[in-house]
Amino acid sequence: MARLVMKFGGTSVANIERIRNVALHVKREVEAGHQVAVVVSAMSGKTNELVAWCKDAAPLYDQREYDAVVASGELVTAGLLAMALQNINIPARSWQGWQIPILTSDAHGSARIEGVDGTALLEGFDKHHEVAVIAGFQGIHKETGRVTTLGRGGSDTSAVAIAAAIGADRCDIYTDVDGVYTTDPRIVTKAQRLDRVAFEEMLEMASLGAKVLQVRSVELAMVHKVKTFVRSSFDDPANPQPGTLICDEEDILEQQVVTGIAYSKDEAQITLRRVADKPGVAAAIFVPLADANINVDMIIQVVSDDKATTDLTFTVPTADFERAKAILEKAKPALGFGDIQGATNVVKVSAIGIGMRSHAGVAAKAFKALADKGINIRAITTSEIKFSVLIDAEYTELAVRTLHTLYGLDKV
Amino acid sequence: MARLVMKFGGTSVANIERIRNVALHVKREVEAGHQVAVVVSAMSGKTNELVAWCKDAAPLYDQREYDAVVASGELVTAGLLAMALQNINIPARSWQGWQIPILTSDAHGSARIEGVDGTALLEGFDKHHEVAVIAGFQGIHKETGRVTTLGRGGSDTSAVAIAAAIGADRCDIYTDVDGVYTTDPRIVTKAQRLDRVAFEEMLEMASLGAKVLQVRSVELAMVHKVKTFVRSSFDDPANPQPGTLICDEEDILEQQVVTGIAYSKDEAQITLRRVADKPGVAAAIFVPLADANINVDMIIQVVSDDKATTDLTFTVPTADFERAKAILEKAKPALGFGDIQGATNVVKVSAIGIGMRSHAGVAAKAFKALADKGINIRAITTSEIKFSVLIDAEYTELAVRTLHTLYGLDKV
Repeated sequence: MARLVMKFGGTSVANIERIRNVALHVKREVEAGHQVAVVVSAMSGKTNELVAWCKDAAPLYDQREYDAVVASGELVTAGLLAMALQNINIPARSWQGWQIPILTSDAHGSARIEGVDGTALLEGFDKHHEVAVIAGFQGIHKETGRVTTLGRGGSDTSAVAIAAAIGADRCDIYTDVDGVYTTDPRIVTKAQRLDRVAFEEMLEMASLGAKVLQVRSVELAMVHKVKTFVRSSFDDPANPQPGTLICDEEDILEQQVVTGIAYSKDEAQITLRRVADKPGVAAAIFVPLADANINVDMIIQVVSDDKATTDLTFTVPTADFERAKAILEKAKPALGFGDIQGATNVVKVSAIGIGMRSHAGVAAKAFKALADKGINIRAITTSEIKFSVLIDAEYTELAVRTLHTLYGLDKV
Repeated sequence: MARLVMKFGGTSVANIERIRNVALHVKREVEAGHQVAVVVSAMSGKTNELVAWCKDAAPLYDQREYDAVVASGELVTAGLLAMALQNINIPARSWQGWQIPILTSDAHGSARIEGVDGTALLEGFDKHHEVAVIAGFQGIHKETGRVTTLGRGGSDTSAVAIAAAIGADRCDIYTDVDGVYTTDPRIVTKAQRLDRVAFEEMLEMASLGAKVLQVRSVELAMVHKVKTFVRSSFDDPANPQPGTLICDEEDILEQQVVTGIAYSKDEAQITLRRVADKPGVAAAIFVPLADANINVDMIIQVVSDDKATTDLTFTVPTADFERAKAILEKAKPALGFGDIQGATNVVKVSAIGIGMRSHAGVAAKAFKALADKGINIRAITTSEIKFSVLIDAEYTELAVRTLHTLYGLDKV
């Protein structure tokens, strides 16, 4: 007997027919003798509907009320799945975030889970032999008791946090794809499904644009060593594929130098021309952006044509582009730079692989291969297990395919 | 400064446009200096959608899961109205049943409110000067902590219970009609809006088929002496009509003998022929029905043609008709009656008025008037302040109009 968490996203529970199909997946695991907690998202489309209502009710809506409204979608799915399970003779009950409780920070709209009490769920397994069906994406603030949500993809994080809290042997994230791929199969037809990915790699992939899992869920899985599978809810419930296991590095026998190629369109570039080259100027620029909660990613500093000043280039999320420019324009007199330039038609392409740690020159090969294809690199960042290049958006597919081939990831 | 509860039903909050209109009604009261708690229903159509999903997920659904699903509709409206209020600069926050908390019995689907803690709401008024927007129709069971719902029209009951808990000076129930009428205006064009109705009369009207308020809400208002208005949310928010006040009998100066005529199509008649006329037989018949939660209303016993036995006629709600017959058929050997007959095409027409207490012969006049129109009376029940007659459904409109004219209720 194992204890496991199964998580089903919006497309997997889009209607009652699909919820019944999910019930069959759960039934399979229960009949295998496992204790099962299921985490569900809202039926696909429902969250968008609720968000649209919020925006209509108040363009500058109160994030706490937004959370109270938007978290309701998952309550519906949890109740319906519990019913569908009972209907095929699997004892089950639904749990709302506050009933468990799942305690979070007060960052409404993107709250962090700070504690999950597994006691009631475990009692449900042991005393009532029932499946726990849990509304994902939500918790309550530990002090105010108000409903919080965890941001887009937050149900993944709910699932992993619950898996950690109840000491689950496994956390299965069911999605509309059958695992994690070496890159986006819509761009590279030769993309391959990975059997295993290390936590660190998955973390980078999620951060760098692969939308399979919420970043925070991978962090939690890594910290709590939760064996997490990404797999498909559209497989035959009686005979499903295993999907991709996200696990410790040590559990991966044949380590590739590069495991995957990710890309993110959500990047905008800002260049400040002729910034006074004096101590403290970088802080003067980036502190106001940080205060406004704008995440600055790649930073490059180049001496200007006039040799007395520097040009400073950095990227911010596209959604924050206009706001960042406004903040900088306002600070212009104090900062004393010449000019702001910006571009939103840029894309960040990244290669991720734990093998980079022990292999030199991995990124250099990429720079050459991209240059050979005539792709201009606007900025570069590297870390121990990944590197990213910022390029013009029109070269996205070409760059992804070039790197995918370069690192031997193409399916043969 | 007064403290008041305003309740808005599903059609009043059917979309964001209407929710904005509700916000204007609330704004008017806040600007008059009042402390305001608002109770809202789900957007019209939403509850039905949720109910349909439940039935689809499991024909024999778990009532506890049903409650968890169906109660979500009100959470959405509460959050949206709080946002719409903030958007016009009225401080507000939403409250979910469990947050207050509103404690109920465990009769899922038709739970009774057993306690409302007004502390947090009063603190919101005093400390934060904010409007409390409360999700109606729901609470939590005081022991299990699971979500319960109060049955159709339950938000009325939420509103009155909250009014009692916070010591409100007034509870305004906003609906799609502008008050309580002497009878259904769709049947009698000369029906008049009443300025005042006594609690007892309203209780009878609600029980006897006038669908303006949930019966339980009137009971609570009567017990806790909550001055309750029924009024229209479709009035100009800047210049609304007062509606109908439901109040103590003593507060009504000009008492009519008959205040209103109600009718209920939800009646089915069962007649047991040749029931053995011996002690205990009535109990033998009605106890099994009571055990099955079937509400028996009118009862008439007549000596049969054979003089040795009696015929027993009574009514049950239409929804319970088949079930009641099955129970009686099963008990037939023990009861020893001759035959079961039933009819569902019957209607109960009632006249209600506190003045009946002090006037003799009020009902007798009606029997004559109905007979004059050729309407056959199948059964009669009377109480201190109302009498009801069971007639063939096809005579409904004629009977209602006849009584409405008879008791001087026609608008001149």
